[in-house]
Amino acid sequence: MGMTMVEKILAAHSGRDSLEPGEIVNAKLDLVLGNDITTPVAIEEFEKIGVEEVFDKDKIALVPDHFTPNKDINSAGQTKSIREFAAEKGITNYFEIGEMGIEHCLLPEQGLVKPGQIIIGADSHTCTYGAFGALGTGVGSTDMAAGMATGEAWFKVPETIKFVFTGKLQPWVSGKDLILHTIGDIGVDGALYRAMEFTGEVIDSLSMADRMTISNMAIEAGGKCGLIAPDQTTFDYLAGRVDDDYQVFTSDADASYYKEIEYNVSELEPQVAFPHLPENTRPISQVKDIPVDQVVIGSCTNGRLKDIREAAQVLKGKKKAANVRLLVFPGTQEIYKQAMHEGLIEILIDAGAAVSTPTCGPCLGGHMGVLAAGEKAISTTNRNFVGRMGHPESEVYLANPTVAAASAIAGEIVSPEEVV
Amino acid sequence: MGMTMVEKILAAHSGRDSLEPGEIVNAKLDLVLGNDITTPVAIEEFEKIGVEEVFDKDKIALVPDHFTPNKDINSAGQTKSIREFAAEKGITNYFEIGEMGIEHCLLPEQGLVKPGQIIIGADSHTCTYGAFGALGTGVGSTDMAAGMATGEAWFKVPETIKFVFTGKLQPWVSGKDLILHTIGDIGVDGALYRAMEFTGEVIDSLSMADRMTISNMAIEAGGKCGLIAPDQTTFDYLAGRVDDDYQVFTSDADASYYKEIEYNVSELEPQVAFPHLPENTRPISQVKDIPVDQVVIGSCTNGRLKDIREAAQVLKGKKKAANVRLLVFPGTQEIYKQAMHEGLIEILIDAGAAVSTPTCGPCLGGHMGVLAAGEKAISTTNRNFVGRMGHPESEVYLANPTVAAASAIAGEIVSPEEVV
Repeated sequence: MGMTMVEKILAAHSGRDSLEPGEIVNAKLDLVLGNDITTPVAIEEFEKIGVEEVFDKDKIALVPDHFTPNKDINSAGQTKSIREFAAEKGITNYFEIGEMGIEHCLLPEQGLVKPGQIIIGADSHTCTYGAFGALGTGVGSTDMAAGMATGEAWFKVPETIKFVFTGKLQPWVSGKDLILHTIGDIGVDGALYRAMEFTGEVIDSLSMADRMTISNMAIEAGGKCGLIAPDQTTFDYLAGRVDDDYQVFTSDADASYYKEIEYNVSELEPQVAFPHLPENTRPISQVKDIPVDQVVIGSCTNGRLKDIREAAQVLKGKKKAANVRLLVFPGTQEIYKQAMHEGLIEILIDAGAAVSTPTCGPCLGGHMGVLAAGEKAISTTNRNFVGRMGHPESEVYLANPTVAAASAIAGEIVSPEEVV
Repeated sequence: MGMTMVEKILAAHSGRDSLEPGEIVNAKLDLVLGNDITTPVAIEEFEKIGVEEVFDKDKIALVPDHFTPNKDINSAGQTKSIREFAAEKGITNYFEIGEMGIEHCLLPEQGLVKPGQIIIGADSHTCTYGAFGALGTGVGSTDMAAGMATGEAWFKVPETIKFVFTGKLQPWVSGKDLILHTIGDIGVDGALYRAMEFTGEVIDSLSMADRMTISNMAIEAGGKCGLIAPDQTTFDYLAGRVDDDYQVFTSDADASYYKEIEYNVSELEPQVAFPHLPENTRPISQVKDIPVDQVVIGSCTNGRLKDIREAAQVLKGKKKAANVRLLVFPGTQEIYKQAMHEGLIEILIDAGAAVSTPTCGPCLGGHMGVLAAGEKAISTTNRNFVGRMGHPESEVYLANPTVAAASAIAGEIVSPEEVV
């Protein structure tokens, strides 16, 4: 019987020809990732293991991006400990504050993500790399420590759910809407510890930016990973960024899936996830009278150039509503510069936006856009849990960049059709 | 006998023909300023006074710029209270987060500062407006509240110290160096409750940006204000920004000064103020072996276009040292946009800088660049007190933007001559 992508990747990394869901395997790691929140804990755990060196200086990526530029004395201490660890161990892929970007935008851009890899990251949204057909998955700081020491991690081979997207997307509908729709359908535990595999003609037609948005949110349905088979779009993105020394794994035609779900998305509208779960989705036509205090465009979910372009397309020549704060966070310095070259940053500032240097800040209520009691935000980020962006009595609505931009103009959540 | 500028301004605002230092006068206010740290306290005090309306909706400026975009739940609550107060009282000059700038860069740019005015601000560096021949001075939140209610404040008429700068400035020497030199000479209490008046051929030759830098730091010598007589440079800056409905006051030739101090600055080098006081100045040639972890360019002291241009001039085509964080904070959105048009932002990013949306953040250890224990920063800001930029065991060195930029490249404090 055939194998799914995730089974093939795990088999190849654990010296097996075949394996079955439910088996425990010890797999070699291609990359171990940490950020400024999780790495300091991982460093403490690493010291306890008692090895002197990391398993491979080139296969660890440390990205201080959450509370940076340092938001307070504690976060300054955290980033300092990472910097010192990186220097002491000679870690190649340490990204200094200011040269940085948001980890899940930065690593693919830097050519650190390749098809067929296994990447563990002490960050939930490491599943983003599934967009490249890599098994990216979030782990705790202890697993990150063990990964840095041994270059291996154990996995229970997950079952796979196959999602097939057919039809043709309406205007203003993007990858964000496909994944919100999916989570809305199956729920936030609908793929618990299962590999999600996104396929179909609609996925084939998507840019890497949209694919990364989809894979990024696999964890919001409980998925272990969110895989998309590499194709020419993938290879075009990788060209010039990575060598050809990678292996592409795709699911066999006769692979066994836990479930197959097909969505015809020709009629799908832009989606909005209401507080306080990503599964609380509604089509934009059913969203009325939700005034917003803050609009956040960016993050590892939707902070890529395509997202900034789409937001700017809606905001061009317009002004945000007076009572709204509009905050834009490009994912990396490269994206920021490219957006500047294309005149997008100017459009955004003219519309009344504050454009930040890349940081995760507001997404997790870290800094640079925290909400007060009673405030509402619409955001292109990935989570709208209670208190996610600040006060426990604040609310976050999730949407794509065009809906967020349109809502900034209207001062309430609306479709881009209403303002463009 | 003649009068000094500050005496004339106070007389004109208190219905007097003449007055003497030491007298107490009640003066009419042209503008009352508050930021997100001080205004919430002022609002509480205002409510206690029991008046319904502010004295003049057009003569209050509220600028949430310190911990914004909101750094945490507390600061989000602070800015929310200001926003609600501004809306309730119909305050014209409320500057929303994102459309904002740093108060002392923003207000002159917006045409809210005119020669001859009296401006009180619940922020120490309100003395910046002295660069326009306005009596700008910092007050507490209670005085701000009373000012908002009554449009008046009491002043003890200060004595004036006259500073005369003669000679011709060396390359890389700017307004920042003149004021650091002055504070280094007279000490941080050298002008305690006295008006500082900056005059002489060197001052005449300076841009408004340099003049604002000088006046900005008057408080660092204890000065009540730091005045510069308006001239053609001033009028050129004001043209198109303000109406001609202002009165220019200059000191009489026979005015009586507490003291006159003359500096011939032809040999003056760029100055560096060592921890932990602005008076601990040394010429750059006497600064050796001070490695830095962070470089901050911007703030109300040195975040104007001229400052960004000078930093970019030094950094153009170069890279910051690997172990340095380089943070750039333009003073306003207008400055940021202009810097973008001139290609300066790109130069800075290419040099490894994080360019922030305007915020006071790192200057006061607020956010966006807080120091850890044992770290050193060189900064174009105005204060290097213990713990000013973060941990009590961190250190801040003050300098002009070209010295800061050069130090970013070298990884230690150096003169721009060493890297350009």
